[in-house]
Amino acid sequence: MRAEIIAVGTELLLGQIVNTNAQFIARACADLGVSVYFQTVVGDNMARLTESLALAKSRADLVICTGGLGPTQDDLTKDALSAFLGQKLVVHQPSLEYIEQFFRNRGVTMVESNIRQALMLEQSDPLKNDNGMAVGVALTQDGTHYILLPGPPKEMKPMFESYAAPWIASQIGGLQPLYSRMLKFAGIGESALEHELLDLIRAQTDPTIAPYAKEGEVAIRITTRSSSQAEADNKLEPLEQEIRRRLGAHIYANVDVTLEQEILRLLNERGQRLAAAESCTGGLLSDMITAIPGSSSVYQGGIVCYTNGWKHKLLGVPEEVLEGPEAPGAVSDETARLLAGNLLRQAEVDYAVAITGVAGPGESEGKPVGLVYVAVARKDGETVSKKLQLSGNRESIKLRAAKSALYLLWQQLQK
Amino acid sequence: MRAEIIAVGTELLLGQIVNTNAQFIARACADLGVSVYFQTVVGDNMARLTESLALAKSRADLVICTGGLGPTQDDLTKDALSAFLGQKLVVHQPSLEYIEQFFRNRGVTMVESNIRQALMLEQSDPLKNDNGMAVGVALTQDGTHYILLPGPPKEMKPMFESYAAPWIASQIGGLQPLYSRMLKFAGIGESALEHELLDLIRAQTDPTIAPYAKEGEVAIRITTRSSSQAEADNKLEPLEQEIRRRLGAHIYANVDVTLEQEILRLLNERGQRLAAAESCTGGLLSDMITAIPGSSSVYQGGIVCYTNGWKHKLLGVPEEVLEGPEAPGAVSDETARLLAGNLLRQAEVDYAVAITGVAGPGESEGKPVGLVYVAVARKDGETVSKKLQLSGNRESIKLRAAKSALYLLWQQLQK
Repeated sequence: MRAEIIAVGTELLLGQIVNTNAQFIARACADLGVSVYFQTVVGDNMARLTESLALAKSRADLVICTGGLGPTQDDLTKDALSAFLGQKLVVHQPSLEYIEQFFRNRGVTMVESNIRQALMLEQSDPLKNDNGMAVGVALTQDGTHYILLPGPPKEMKPMFESYAAPWIASQIGGLQPLYSRMLKFAGIGESALEHELLDLIRAQTDPTIAPYAKEGEVAIRITTRSSSQAEADNKLEPLEQEIRRRLGAHIYANVDVTLEQEILRLLNERGQRLAAAESCTGGLLSDMITAIPGSSSVYQGGIVCYTNGWKHKLLGVPEEVLEGPEAPGAVSDETARLLAGNLLRQAEVDYAVAITGVAGPGESEGKPVGLVYVAVARKDGETVSKKLQLSGNRESIKLRAAKSALYLLWQQLQK
Repeated sequence: MRAEIIAVGTELLLGQIVNTNAQFIARACADLGVSVYFQTVVGDNMARLTESLALAKSRADLVICTGGLGPTQDDLTKDALSAFLGQKLVVHQPSLEYIEQFFRNRGVTMVESNIRQALMLEQSDPLKNDNGMAVGVALTQDGTHYILLPGPPKEMKPMFESYAAPWIASQIGGLQPLYSRMLKFAGIGESALEHELLDLIRAQTDPTIAPYAKEGEVAIRITTRSSSQAEADNKLEPLEQEIRRRLGAHIYANVDVTLEQEILRLLNERGQRLAAAESCTGGLLSDMITAIPGSSSVYQGGIVCYTNGWKHKLLGVPEEVLEGPEAPGAVSDETARLLAGNLLRQAEVDYAVAITGVAGPGESEGKPVGLVYVAVARKDGETVSKKLQLSGNRESIKLRAAKSALYLLWQQLQK
């Protein structure tokens, strides 16, 4: 089944609000096994709304509208569908009673226009609104299904989940649900990843393969339709294994977790503790880790040693390493290793991570923007470090430096 | 002029990401005086992308596409427009050189597919990408204007503002330019702000008044069209003064800077230095401050004292304050003040900020989620503190706590 989503509202066209409704409905459709090929936003305008309905009918089996069910003269969605399908609007009595009761309870006189919220198409099923006044509508005509939902997310989402989704499922009948795995990668870029998997991506049919990149992480989603989890696993597992054969050293999870979540899970499982010393990332790594609920059982704390003074005073990096014509400097492998090693002992943790580098926009110590050293010290072993040349603006370099440090830590946790 | 926005990406159709790009472009079009009647989302599919281009051309003078300019086989937007308009794709030499340089700097071999990011239509103007590799495209054919922008917001937004918006403005011709001021507020919520200004917002014609809320900050944008800056100032100044008369204590700037940028500007101007001790915000405040280029001349560093052990050992909070049946506890006014005061002396700075609280999701020390204490110690005066009861999820509480600490610091800087 193919669906098309139409979000109705001039405030969307003016960019006053973000269309989170379309995302919610799109994801809910994917979960139902319904494909969405187009989403549209149109204003509260009868002609353009009708044009959008006609277009959607021509290329989808299911047309889902959200918005324009309110009491004002601007709210035209029900009128537009009524005219488009040649069906009269009638009052849904239970909704009208609910609206009347609402105004009685508040001691406010109901305005005539509020009755509009109780209208539905003559041959439609009402969708109950548990969080507002406008009743939703579901109906089938000439083989096309239509659903009208309110615009406010706190009304739309519960109505979709409780009433629209079951209604759609009952129309679909036998379609098999989607099953997917999200393979999460670290330490590899989007194009290199795709280069390695190009033949698989080109030949994909079932399961499908889709690459994703966001916020310093890359992922591959593999998806199939099946009648059961077991049948899906039989199709997904060989593909996952083939991808692991090629790029296993970069795969840290096959579910949608972040690298920091996976690391915290591992450390928590082992009862081990972590601390961080950050120079160029300036607290970002600590912030990413402490964004995770329950991180306090693993993460002891961090030191943002932004100046040389702090690196020396708080973390014991000798002044002769930091400064002087022959010194390695604050941005160096030596400093990264000393920060990690000294923090490990001082904080009495199992792992200490350190990051030092040049986030930009200007160079530092005559070293180029993007030069970053990361180090991981471990209680039961050697300190390891890595030199990186990262690209992007200050924000990207901070993010990539933090993710690279996490990748180095994750690699240590595999040993 | 009528515009239509086409966002390209299967991840939008699957509901994996929210279409914030459409909102940004829609608002930017409104600022340019360009009307948007339709927005569309379509997947990375040649046939459906071409169908969307044809439809947009039939009902708009300006077609703005975002997404699908990357290096992979999925990225088809340039190919689709090229085929649709019958224009060849050619290499934009400066972009290619930038991409080659990028890979040389990283010591990585460039994959052939990366060249795709340097392609543009034969008779188009390139739009420079200051934050990524894919060059944008602007062109006019048969009276219709087309703009292709990358999908990642951090590439798309600067490209739109720096290059696409001026290009569009040059096509529009005679329209008077917009002048606006962004009044930035701290320490006040969106509804309280709107309540205080409701009569002004309702009566607005010229200048217009638009409230904005994002990431823990609230702003009011006042805008007018004028032939010159001086004429615009004559219209904007009285309105700004009226808003200041009502809410001046909360206005920290009348340009679009963040609270942390304004604080760093003030401290830098005075040659003063800053440090931070963070418990529940876990490094977020440090990260926000160090996101600003040049922050290292003011910001000395921070301590993420996530555990009681760190609060005691690194920042000298007595154990009897932190633990025990009668102790104030880690989440208390006493602890916040001790963290700030001890850090001030230890780090030898002019101002030290401290934050301690319960970010959730669970309570801590029997104290409720959202209870936060912030304190600011100053070298030349008293330590001040504030108790807050914040709402929202873990992420919101961290953000609001950090912003509240900054507001307390900003208030001290006014004295």
